[in-house]
Amino acid sequence: MKTIDGGVTAPQGFKAASCAANIKYENREDMALIYSEDVCKVAGTFTRNVVKAAPVIWDRNIVNNNIGVQAIVVNSGIANACTGDEGISMCIKTAQAASSALHIPYEGVLVASTGVIGMQIPMDKIKNGINDMVPKLSYDNDAAHGAAQAIMTTDTIPKEAAVSVEIGGKEVVIGGMSKGSGMIHPNMCTMLAFVSSDVNISEEMLKKALSIVVEDTYNMISVDGDTSTNDTCLLLANGRAGNDIIDSEGPDFDAFTEALFEVNRTLAKMMAGDGEGANALFEVKVVGADNVANAKTLAKSVVTSSLTKAAIYGHDANWGRILCALGYAGVDFDPENVDLYFESKAGKLQIVSKGVSTGYSEEEATKILSEDAVTAICDMHMGDAKATAWGCDLTHEYVSINADYRS
Amino acid sequence: MKTIDGGVTAPQGFKAASCAANIKYENREDMALIYSEDVCKVAGTFTRNVVKAAPVIWDRNIVNNNIGVQAIVVNSGIANACTGDEGISMCIKTAQAASSALHIPYEGVLVASTGVIGMQIPMDKIKNGINDMVPKLSYDNDAAHGAAQAIMTTDTIPKEAAVSVEIGGKEVVIGGMSKGSGMIHPNMCTMLAFVSSDVNISEEMLKKALSIVVEDTYNMISVDGDTSTNDTCLLLANGRAGNDIIDSEGPDFDAFTEALFEVNRTLAKMMAGDGEGANALFEVKVVGADNVANAKTLAKSVVTSSLTKAAIYGHDANWGRILCALGYAGVDFDPENVDLYFESKAGKLQIVSKGVSTGYSEEEATKILSEDAVTAICDMHMGDAKATAWGCDLTHEYVSINADYRS
Repeated sequence: MKTIDGGVTAPQGFKAASCAANIKYENREDMALIYSEDVCKVAGTFTRNVVKAAPVIWDRNIVNNNIGVQAIVVNSGIANACTGDEGISMCIKTAQAASSALHIPYEGVLVASTGVIGMQIPMDKIKNGINDMVPKLSYDNDAAHGAAQAIMTTDTIPKEAAVSVEIGGKEVVIGGMSKGSGMIHPNMCTMLAFVSSDVNISEEMLKKALSIVVEDTYNMISVDGDTSTNDTCLLLANGRAGNDIIDSEGPDFDAFTEALFEVNRTLAKMMAGDGEGANALFEVKVVGADNVANAKTLAKSVVTSSLTKAAIYGHDANWGRILCALGYAGVDFDPENVDLYFESKAGKLQIVSKGVSTGYSEEEATKILSEDAVTAICDMHMGDAKATAWGCDLTHEYVSINADYRS
Repeated sequence: MKTIDGGVTAPQGFKAASCAANIKYENREDMALIYSEDVCKVAGTFTRNVVKAAPVIWDRNIVNNNIGVQAIVVNSGIANACTGDEGISMCIKTAQAASSALHIPYEGVLVASTGVIGMQIPMDKIKNGINDMVPKLSYDNDAAHGAAQAIMTTDTIPKEAAVSVEIGGKEVVIGGMSKGSGMIHPNMCTMLAFVSSDVNISEEMLKKALSIVVEDTYNMISVDGDTSTNDTCLLLANGRAGNDIIDSEGPDFDAFTEALFEVNRTLAKMMAGDGEGANALFEVKVVGADNVANAKTLAKSVVTSSLTKAAIYGHDANWGRILCALGYAGVDFDPENVDLYFESKAGKLQIVSKGVSTGYSEEEATKILSEDAVTAICDMHMGDAKATAWGCDLTHEYVSINADYRS
């Protein structure tokens, strides 16, 4: 497996385009289109929020009924959530507009939206946007990059990743893009992610691979504990790589899953590090837990703690808040067995030994915590299970963005 | 029942004192002492955090073993949490110092601490503080007020409440004080609260009353989702009111519980409104839920949502975030049946009807949300159950305080 340049157009047969549809933002692109020449198999995971945005309802139906897919239409600015029957009708009309422009069945058009909740989508702008994008569809990396930029809301950087892996003697490529900065919390994806591949794989195995990967990537990131109404991760596979079809578990499935994990972990970490207002990516590794479920729960509890996140912002080795967050996670452990370390490019330092301070140098700790990616390692000394969660620091800028998001 | 002036010294037989022991803060008092001439019955509720501060372990033992209590020693500045065996030893030494100075058994001395986690208590300062306070013990409201001020950490106002209620022809008084501003989240008290009463009541009924009251007061407030290591609520009763002993449920028990609820609700709301950096008390009322447990879960989910809290700070009627927070609470409901209102001194406005916007006036909504106490009312239209949770807005100041708490 090797990392390659590009995003959703990196695999064979996938095109992308973007445009400025003036849905909410001015002077920037706010619509993206992904198109596959071939009918794709599709897998998807969606928000577990009871309040589901209309596009989530639309897409879930397509994914659950194994309907072949050829296009994804995405807009930023308006989430099309809490929009009632009119919201669903907007999804149908969007799919129909893409269907007309691309000459494909409308049941094969996925739709995704992100932005403000409760406003209706302006259908005329969406239609104009689709008609604008179709002639611009391109295999270029630049087209994928434009699409990754167009789906951003409060994101500050576009998020793309691509890898190439040999499966059964053929080169298989996986490319992806995602967005997500606020309302990011591990409970399914809590963001939008679109991943394409030219792998030849059965529907069942495609869905299985995505489920495995989502659990350890998107479901392990948190910006603010708010699980969005729109969370969607869609994975399309068109089979162009020409590998023998992957229709059961085995080395080929493992190689594909590993490559898929790499793309999605990269996108997930980029989202955490680009959390609203974030100055730093905050990684929490729990090791020595009694089982993986507990390791995940503990890691998520620390990465979600507002007090811990504010301390990371202040470059303050306030380890008591980390022990406190482990303590309220709902997992039983002996505090007097816990070791704690901070690590970054600037070094690694043990802060806590058997539940009490090591008498470490505050100066050295602050130096380690002043990098733009910092890791807390919690060794529970109970077993061999481990998990990693990703989040970010809690900053003044987070409050500014969210006290003022709609205006 | 009527509200009266004063705090922990309002009931007969209770004295208080405070002093500057220079434990961590300079130029302010940071120790408090509550003393009862009579041996008291005691009830207590404590943090459910796996990481329990040493004073929690000490006090829980006294409460569970029905040991009569005559004094509570409190310090602010250092939490005595994550301090290992040395931390427990500090509790014993504190109790012994109070025992010597007050000539009472050391097993009857409760201890409470709040402040930074992980530092050891300076025992010499604690001893000097106790010796300083004992001669100053007084029945005056001023002494109670000084104690309420001395236990503050990042609190900006002292928190006291007292009521008087007639039970069996006798006047029974309940007085209390509390502190809590950060690490406030509903899972037991998440703060320190000390409540005194001259009621004559059995140990069993005293504990029962406190359990009932804590569930709907302290367990329904949240500042930041972080459940502290030190959360403690202690209730002392010395029997001086002379009412016939309350040793079973009935009208007397109900009258006492109602009065106890009033004192503790007042203290809980004061804590929520004085959340770290808070500009406003944020009250969330869920009505029309299918059962009380679900009503509580929904109310807590909204009051805890960082995005909703930031919107309240921005006086922004961002109702989509409230529906979103209801949606990820883990309770099943039909979003298309939900009505939502905002209310404050400035008026009441319906924002959402059957899951979609009413087309309300943003200007009017902002006016309502600009008060220093605002309420969101969520009508689920499923049944008759209701619950109220209290929190606060999320401000720049919260981040400033917590990025910089230890320095």
